[in-house]
Amino acid sequence: MNEILVVGSVALDSVKTPYGEAVDALGGSASYFAFSASHFAPVRIVAVVGEDFPDEHRETFRRRGVDLSGLQRAKGRTFRWRGEYEAELGHAHTLETQLNVFSTFHPDLGAAHRGCPFVFLANIDPELQLEVLGQMTKPQLSVSDTMNYWIARSPDRVMEVMRRVDVALLNEEEARALSGETQLVRAAGRLIELGAKSVIVKKGEHGSLYRSRDELFLIPAFPVGGLQDPTGAGDSFAGGFLGWLARSGSLEMPIRRQAMAFGTAMASLAIEAFSPARLVAAQGDEIARRVATLHRMVDFELEKSFP
Amino acid sequence: MNEILVVGSVALDSVKTPYGEAVDALGGSASYFAFSASHFAPVRIVAVVGEDFPDEHRETFRRRGVDLSGLQRAKGRTFRWRGEYEAELGHAHTLETQLNVFSTFHPDLGAAHRGCPFVFLANIDPELQLEVLGQMTKPQLSVSDTMNYWIARSPDRVMEVMRRVDVALLNEEEARALSGETQLVRAAGRLIELGAKSVIVKKGEHGSLYRSRDELFLIPAFPVGGLQDPTGAGDSFAGGFLGWLARSGSLEMPIRRQAMAFGTAMASLAIEAFSPARLVAAQGDEIARRVATLHRMVDFELEKSFP
Repeated sequence: MNEILVVGSVALDSVKTPYGEAVDALGGSASYFAFSASHFAPVRIVAVVGEDFPDEHRETFRRRGVDLSGLQRAKGRTFRWRGEYEAELGHAHTLETQLNVFSTFHPDLGAAHRGCPFVFLANIDPELQLEVLGQMTKPQLSVSDTMNYWIARSPDRVMEVMRRVDVALLNEEEARALSGETQLVRAAGRLIELGAKSVIVKKGEHGSLYRSRDELFLIPAFPVGGLQDPTGAGDSFAGGFLGWLARSGSLEMPIRRQAMAFGTAMASLAIEAFSPARLVAAQGDEIARRVATLHRMVDFELEKSFP
Repeated sequence: MNEILVVGSVALDSVKTPYGEAVDALGGSASYFAFSASHFAPVRIVAVVGEDFPDEHRETFRRRGVDLSGLQRAKGRTFRWRGEYEAELGHAHTLETQLNVFSTFHPDLGAAHRGCPFVFLANIDPELQLEVLGQMTKPQLSVSDTMNYWIARSPDRVMEVMRRVDVALLNEEEARALSGETQLVRAAGRLIELGAKSVIVKKGEHGSLYRSRDELFLIPAFPVGGLQDPTGAGDSFAGGFLGWLARSGSLEMPIRRQAMAFGTAMASLAIEAFSPARLVAAQGDEIARRVATLHRMVDFELEKSFP
C-alpha cells in the first residue's frame, strides 16, 4: 500500500461554536488529515508535541493505525489554538495561538519518511514546507495547504510552494488574496498561470473546485444534518483526497475526480463533531454512502438530441 | 409543441457595469425569459409597454418566434429600470425604477394564453401572480420567480404563490430571507416544509440547487469568459429550465436535472452581453456545447470497490 506522509501540527484545541464547546481537545492539521486518510491508506505523521501531550491521544492515533515514529516530543507545552465560530459558521475567529514547542519545529525526516510516495504539507510556514519537500526522495504526489497568515507575510514563498507541489489546496479567501481575482474559477486559473500545476479551492458550503491547465471539476459540499464544529474540514478533505489517490495507486483525472468526492465526504464527517471524534469512528460503508449521495446530487444524463 | 406563457415585465433598461453601459436597452424579466425559452419551445408573452416602445424591439421578438399577441400597449411610457453593478458583480444597485404603464397592469388572459401547458410567473407582485394562476385552465407546470422587494412587503403572499406553483425560483438572499436559514440546502428544505413543492435556489457564481421533498440536485455555474452584464441571468435560467421541460414533454426528475443544465447554459449566455443580445444570437450547438461542458465539470464515476 502507498504510504502517506503528513507534516503539520498536532495540537490541543479549545473551540466554541453555537452548538457546544471543547477544551484542550485533540486537534491540529496533521491530526485531522491523518484520521481522515487512515481510512484509505497507511499514514505517517511528522510533527512535534510537548511534554503535556496526553497518552490517550497517542492511543487514538494507534487505533487508526497512524504511525507516530515521526512525532517528536519536545520540552515544553504542546501547540494550542483557541477559537470561536459565529452563528454563520463560516470562518474561525482565533482568540489565542500558543505556538509553544511548535515555534522551533524543524522537521528532520528519517529514511522511512523521506521515501513515502505521497506527501501532504499541511498549513505550516512555507519555508518548512520547502524544507520537507527538499528532503523527500521522489514523491509520486505532493500536496500543500496554506492559510491567509502566510499569504499576507510571504506570498512569494507560498507561490514557490504552489509551483513545487503537484496539487495546492487553498480556501476561497486565500485563492482570492493570492490571485487578485474575485471569481473563483478564474482565481484558480490565475494561479495556474502563475505556475501552480493544479489547484483545489475549498469553498465551504459551496463545495470545492479542482483546476489544472486542462481540467475543471466542481463538486458541491455534502449537506450535513448536524453541523457541530467546522474545525479541520479542510485537512479532512485533504485526507480523503490523498487517501483515495494513495489507495487507488493512480493519479489519472478520473481518480482525482473520485478523490474530490472522498475528500468531500470526509470533510462532512469531520464537522459533525468536535475534535476528530467522528472521523475516528467513521465506518467505510457510511463514507461510501456519502460518496454515492454526492454522485446522485450532481449526476445528469447528457442529452444528444439537441439541437 | 408545448407552448409556454410568461407573464412579467418588458422594459427599457439603463445599466452600467465595470465593462460598459447600455441606455434604454430592451430588458425586463419576460423579455430575457422569452428569448431564452424560445430556443426550445414556442413562447407567448403577456406584459404591457407604453407608446414609446420601439418597433425594432417587437421585431427582435418576432425574429425569435415569440408571440406578442398578449403584449398590451397602454398610454404612457414603458417601464424603465436604471441600475449599476459594482466590481464584484454580485447584485444590482438600483438607481431608479419607473413603473410607468406597469403600475396599473392587470393581466387579462385570452383563451390561447389560458390554455398554455407551461407558465412562468416572472418577478411581479405576488397578487398579480395569483391572478394569473387563477386564470390558467390547467397548466402541466407552473413556475414562479420573486424578489426581495416582495418578500419584505408581503412574505405571506410570496409563500402562497410558492405553495401554489410546481417550482419556485429564488436567489440565495431571497431563500435566506424567506426561510430564516443561512445554509442554502437547509433554506430550501425549510421552504419545502412550509409548503413549497419544489424550490430552485440561484446562487450566482456558485450555481444553483433544486430541492423537493425527495430530491436534491446541484449544478455549478458555467464559467463564462467575458462577463459583461449580469442583468437577466435568473430569467434566462428560468427560460432554459422551462424551455427544456416543454420541449421534452416530461416532468420526470432526470429531465428536470437536464433542465437545470440548460437553464445554467442560458444564464451564462445572457451575461456575456448587455441586453438580451447574446440570447437572441445564440445557436443551438453552442448551447449544447455548454451543457456538455457542464456535464464534464461535474461527472465522476461511482466507485463500487470501497469499502
